[in-house]
Amino acid sequence: MGIVVVGSVAFDTIETPRGRVERAIGGSATYFSMAASFFAPVQLVAVAGEDFGDDYRAILESRDVDLEGLDLVPGGRTFFWQGRYGGDPNDRQTLKTDLNVFEGFQPTLPDGYRGTDWIFLGNIDPSIQLQVLDQATGKPFVGCDTMNFWIERKPDELRRLLGRVDILFINDEEARQLSGEQNLVHAGESVLKMGPKALVIKKGEHGALLMTGEFRFFAPAYPLRDVVDPTGAGDSFAGGFMGYLAGTSNMDEQHLRRAMLYGTATASFTCESFSVDRLKELTRDSISGRFEELVALIAVERDELG
Amino acid sequence: MGIVVVGSVAFDTIETPRGRVERAIGGSATYFSMAASFFAPVQLVAVAGEDFGDDYRAILESRDVDLEGLDLVPGGRTFFWQGRYGGDPNDRQTLKTDLNVFEGFQPTLPDGYRGTDWIFLGNIDPSIQLQVLDQATGKPFVGCDTMNFWIERKPDELRRLLGRVDILFINDEEARQLSGEQNLVHAGESVLKMGPKALVIKKGEHGALLMTGEFRFFAPAYPLRDVVDPTGAGDSFAGGFMGYLAGTSNMDEQHLRRAMLYGTATASFTCESFSVDRLKELTRDSISGRFEELVALIAVERDELG
Repeated sequence: MGIVVVGSVAFDTIETPRGRVERAIGGSATYFSMAASFFAPVQLVAVAGEDFGDDYRAILESRDVDLEGLDLVPGGRTFFWQGRYGGDPNDRQTLKTDLNVFEGFQPTLPDGYRGTDWIFLGNIDPSIQLQVLDQATGKPFVGCDTMNFWIERKPDELRRLLGRVDILFINDEEARQLSGEQNLVHAGESVLKMGPKALVIKKGEHGALLMTGEFRFFAPAYPLRDVVDPTGAGDSFAGGFMGYLAGTSNMDEQHLRRAMLYGTATASFTCESFSVDRLKELTRDSISGRFEELVALIAVERDELG
Repeated sequence: MGIVVVGSVAFDTIETPRGRVERAIGGSATYFSMAASFFAPVQLVAVAGEDFGDDYRAILESRDVDLEGLDLVPGGRTFFWQGRYGGDPNDRQTLKTDLNVFEGFQPTLPDGYRGTDWIFLGNIDPSIQLQVLDQATGKPFVGCDTMNFWIERKPDELRRLLGRVDILFINDEEARQLSGEQNLVHAGESVLKMGPKALVIKKGEHGALLMTGEFRFFAPAYPLRDVVDPTGAGDSFAGGFMGYLAGTSNMDEQHLRRAMLYGTATASFTCESFSVDRLKELTRDSISGRFEELVALIAVERDELG
């Protein structure tokens, strides 16, 4: 069962305490696709410019990502982002953003994608995210990301969108902003009332919390020895999470709990190198190994004493 | 099996976004004792002044804490601390510290305490912590806390002490400072090499990590709906943790993992009120209830797919 992902494809120039990379492949759809591809077929819908050459396509194709939905604009330039991280990987500074062809992004699902059972909406304008959902012919399971910019600028569109989302992936600050609640439990409950059946609150190096109306699950971050570049960790988390669900075609509680750990495991690899370098060489077995480590990290038997 | 705790008894004046309390009972030995008392008998070794009246003694006695080791200095005044918390409970500001009788604290274990199998050394000068261990006649299991002040000022004494400690409880910043390592995994491994058989790195609202030479366990913080006053959370964590071990007289891996959740559960109650107000009225059943909630929060079955 394949996943359609709609989001950005970008070139990133990134500085971290561990080094620097120039115009490396990035963007939400790129990270999501590479991460999800270890679990399920992926169909990418994005826009890029003429500068997005065959060597970049080859990176996505090496993971069998279907690129029929990648629109290459003749004469256009690909979305460019430049940023810098300090010692705290949760704290990043944007130095430059050139939207380029991404500014006019009007995603169109190829006919073969419209009947999909799985859609991930990367962080773009919620009115565009809604247009994507309108193109789906079935009743897909919808994962969605957003950010503070849209929470501020497009609250009505975002609310309409949330009524059609199965699982929302946001970070703790976004959950507070969206709900107006400082306490994270209250914030999560408030966001769930806006429509999504499930909510993942991502806290970076402090793990992630899954909330539904029925249960909660906390996934610790994988204890990494070396964080090279955290760019794309959130989208890789969502990719591992949704990919695992789509690959098993199962969304019951146990699968959602495991999806949290598969998302965590996949994202941890992304942080170990710049761009998608680590994802390019990754294997499903390596992800399973970290999944097992995470299971062991939180394994506890109930008390026989009660 | 009883636990001897050596630390501070204090009066705290505390402001938080949720209110203010004046000269309420506090101190590391107080919080630890109250928390541990739900699991095992506790014997307190501390110093207080003439202002530490019967109403304060009654709080500890209501939890059956043995006060033979509480030295009341005639004419002396009890350690006083005044502090303020902002919106972030991990960030606190000290407004006033009057050490008073605590300045000359030379703890003496009553004869009946010296054969104890369990000792917790609250955060005091490591040379005094060493003197306490010298008074023990058996081979007690030793839990220990410390802080940045002693890491900077008494590094040699602290190193000697760590060689005699079974489990060290410190926060993430202290682990980084003590080890000189920024990465928490490296920091923890480095601290374990200094002697303690186990290390708990406390991260406040972000949970706690247990590391030994054999395994690691991560405990999420209990998802509190309302943090009134985080003072004493760390000592309450250590009290619940050590109390559970002492009460079961078992320190195997499963008990250490469970102890992390009992410590977390107990500390969560402490944060729900000022001072020890919530601990005063608490029951063992309430703690078990939160233990069960924490178990459910991280419960996951291994993947049948591998």
